[in-house]
Amino acid sequence: MDSSITIDNIQEAHSRIFGLIHQTPILRSSSLNGLAGADLFFKCENVQKTGSFKIRGASNALFMLNELEAKNGVATHSSGNFAAALSSSAKWLGMPSYLVMPENTTLVKVNAVRSYGGDVIFCEPTLEAREQELERIVGETGATFIHPYNNDCVIAGQGTAALELCQAVPDIDILVAPVGGGGLLAGSSIAAKIISSNISIVAAEPKGADDAYRSLEKGEIIPSVEPKTLCDGLLTSLGDKTFPIIQKNVDAIIRVKDETTIEALRLIMERMKQVVEPSAAITLGAILTDPERFKGKRVGLILSGGNINLDQLPWL
Amino acid sequence: MDSSITIDNIQEAHSRIFGLIHQTPILRSSSLNGLAGADLFFKCENVQKTGSFKIRGASNALFMLNELEAKNGVATHSSGNFAAALSSSAKWLGMPSYLVMPENTTLVKVNAVRSYGGDVIFCEPTLEAREQELERIVGETGATFIHPYNNDCVIAGQGTAALELCQAVPDIDILVAPVGGGGLLAGSSIAAKIISSNISIVAAEPKGADDAYRSLEKGEIIPSVEPKTLCDGLLTSLGDKTFPIIQKNVDAIIRVKDETTIEALRLIMERMKQVVEPSAAITLGAILTDPERFKGKRVGLILSGGNINLDQLPWL
Repeated sequence: MDSSITIDNIQEAHSRIFGLIHQTPILRSSSLNGLAGADLFFKCENVQKTGSFKIRGASNALFMLNELEAKNGVATHSSGNFAAALSSSAKWLGMPSYLVMPENTTLVKVNAVRSYGGDVIFCEPTLEAREQELERIVGETGATFIHPYNNDCVIAGQGTAALELCQAVPDIDILVAPVGGGGLLAGSSIAAKIISSNISIVAAEPKGADDAYRSLEKGEIIPSVEPKTLCDGLLTSLGDKTFPIIQKNVDAIIRVKDETTIEALRLIMERMKQVVEPSAAITLGAILTDPERFKGKRVGLILSGGNINLDQLPWL
Repeated sequence: MDSSITIDNIQEAHSRIFGLIHQTPILRSSSLNGLAGADLFFKCENVQKTGSFKIRGASNALFMLNELEAKNGVATHSSGNFAAALSSSAKWLGMPSYLVMPENTTLVKVNAVRSYGGDVIFCEPTLEAREQELERIVGETGATFIHPYNNDCVIAGQGTAALELCQAVPDIDILVAPVGGGGLLAGSSIAAKIISSNISIVAAEPKGADDAYRSLEKGEIIPSVEPKTLCDGLLTSLGDKTFPIIQKNVDAIIRVKDETTIEALRLIMERMKQVVEPSAAITLGAILTDPERFKGKRVGLILSGGNINLDQLPWL
């Protein structure tokens, strides 16, 4: 199955969500450039509304609903950034939202969703329980299920961060994005390949959750089973909408050890003064893992989010 | 003595240093706006080169040296951000720099200065020893002493951050800047008062180092004696160049308890994803201390720097 998402879809998404999202800054650091021997351009989605890029895709999907769907609201299952993004977008557009969250979700994430007016429904912390509970909620409320990444409107929305980056910084040689379910990576790759025709797309994936790497090797989706990584945003498997786009557009997946991600996280906080989460820092971790690939290049990195517990920084 | 620094000096400084400094982003946060009941605009000098606004004033002063002075280089005494700013600017302009630093300065700050090519000379950690050692170095090398704040070119340079902020964000009602020696506050007040004619200038000062507050009350400079605060950038006393400008332009000084500054630091890191130092977070601390003053207003805050030890965040 080939993707039907085009650069036009991403540009339309951008026009649609423009008034809701932040145009996030692109930061540079001489000291990190020196360390990498490359020109690095960091797209700071950590300062995006709700603290991650996810609001781009979530809000784009909500704008596409018809009047009846909007009235009945939206639902998803998520323990993290997508729940906050969906509930925040729904509040902005004046529709109800239902978020199925595992009962072991940290209180700070639950409170964030509730602060956006989202209706939190707890379930057991298994994929099966999440899907069952979601089905029940959708049946009861008539809400539309918005998949966190395996959804064309979500993928197109996530591509708008790379769109902004590649339009602002010409001639990027390599774009690095993290990969979990693949929504950000797929959308980014479509936008970047059109705007910067010679660009390479590189994904950063935790070594302990390398299902995307293995999926590309095997040529079919290998589900993520018992992933072990501190990158809590990158635990999910590719979907049948994200996989073919990634298969077509992505030039390499670099597998990054958690200890390298921690090193990158500290560098980004110390040198760039940005609070990021491990799932974002892994992009710099990919450069630390395979430095030769990036030497002398102009490299764009998508710092996907900044939702990290400041009481438990991983080097403490 | 009245100041002779004009908006023209600040605009010229800006043209001069433009190629060296970062145009730092201005960030907003819905959640902090909600908390304050105000529209907050954060000028992020924490992501400025060398991690603080100090490079603005330092580089402007160096651009004003003549050829012979430039050849002999520059010297200052500083345990902190100004030493890094001066050595970095000097490196960029190809001149030597001599930094007298107390022997108890943390290694990370010493290494930062050395990484910019600065020549570090240690002395005993007293003001007297610093001044004696500086005099010796200046005598030996012919270097020009650049005072960290009591210098017209430095003050004009420091004013460029507020210049950028007030030009980018029209109709700011109140500008909040931290006050230590007063270089940033003085320069900011000159720029802001001209660009936004009805603006109020509010300074944020640590309660345990409130010499500027007491100086304004008494109408003369009260030196800072045994200051007690975790805001390590705000320990110094006003100078005879900064005091009269502050006396003329500043509408209020809010004294902030360290515990409130810690609360503000955590809010800025959690909600805005910015790594800042206590001396920067104190600006939000001023709003938390006197919230009524800011309700319903458009408020600019200068986040002056981001050099903080990530192993010793104050709430840990």
